[in-house]
Amino acid sequence: MLPERLRRVVELFAMLPGVGEKTAQRFALFFAGEAAGFAEELGHELAALASHVRPCERCGSLADVSDGQAVCAICRDNRRDPRLLCIVHRIQDLLAIERSGAMRGRYFVLGRLLSPLDGIGPDQLPLTRLFERIREDGVTEVILATPPSVDGEATALLLARELAAQSLRLTRIASGVPHGGDLEFADQVTLGRAIDGRRSMG
Amino acid sequence: MLPERLRRVVELFAMLPGVGEKTAQRFALFFAGEAAGFAEELGHELAALASHVRPCERCGSLADVSDGQAVCAICRDNRRDPRLLCIVHRIQDLLAIERSGAMRGRYFVLGRLLSPLDGIGPDQLPLTRLFERIREDGVTEVILATPPSVDGEATALLLARELAAQSLRLTRIASGVPHGGDLEFADQVTLGRAIDGRRSMG
Repeated sequence: MLPERLRRVVELFAMLPGVGEKTAQRFALFFAGEAAGFAEELGHELAALASHVRPCERCGSLADVSDGQAVCAICRDNRRDPRLLCIVHRIQDLLAIERSGAMRGRYFVLGRLLSPLDGIGPDQLPLTRLFERIREDGVTEVILATPPSVDGEATALLLARELAAQSLRLTRIASGVPHGGDLEFADQVTLGRAIDGRRSMG
Repeated sequence: MLPERLRRVVELFAMLPGVGEKTAQRFALFFAGEAAGFAEELGHELAALASHVRPCERCGSLADVSDGQAVCAICRDNRRDPRLLCIVHRIQDLLAIERSGAMRGRYFVLGRLLSPLDGIGPDQLPLTRLFERIREDGVTEVILATPPSVDGEATALLLARELAAQSLRLTRIASGVPHGGDLEFADQVTLGRAIDGRRSMG
């Protein structure tokens, strides 16, 4: 019962992660109705996105394209320590760490985690690019910041093994009870890690 | 830390109903990354939406523009009974009723409900257009299908009063315990309405 052109917009919105048929329909009706002006602007931005934004050639995050090259703001920032490299799964994780303000080095975005059940083995990870990056930048410490999930831990173990031969400091982000968290409601694995990873206060 | 062009896309997505900053960022990263091809298609569709899709001149739903005119598929469908008019709040409500298959007449979309707290009085409702539509189509029954909420009921009462002078059959959709619903968990108002609106089975 919707106009044909709008039905295609609904279909495209429904491809978004976590968006079902009804939510996609709500989005499409919003842009067809009250937000017609924004629909045009968003349309132009999305249509031109691929020519303006590309994966950063150095770290796999996203970068503005300029002079045909795409190197992100962090990889271009000279105040960043090039010898400290933080390996993350997704760009969202990079952004979360940046918000914490705790990282003074640079990043490398894997884009995927080891996941034998989904057929993602070591060959599907960008290890060659990672080794190149480590060599080129003279990296001395690699922080493995993949998530503390099964796939994330497996990926961290694989990377630790692959990088063991190089004279690098290899570290893994701490896992434990989150800030403001309640011990009563923390799961057993988290509490176990919090105890195992305890730090001396003296 | 995101490319500038992508930040604007995040801002635009964040205008969508029910979408916050983080979800908007997830959408933008999806279209910048894995779904770059769809980004372009969705972009072109959105940018051209206003020239292809407009509110139906007869009922306020959405229609494909053709020959400069916009009349929706339902208003054009001659098999529909023009004398039966169902008044709804939003296009989404029209679509929901269509899915039920229970409506053989046509619709009129108000676009808003009476809401004194939000400054929406009778003057802000498209009553003149509604009266015109009723007269032109020779409508004999008006179904008031605004939602059974405070604003929806107030709007139904207003419409009933405004239309009382005309020789029309005025009906209101039934309100009660939904199909498959549990009486134990139905609220008092719903149960009260279910009892008040009981029907004879004999």
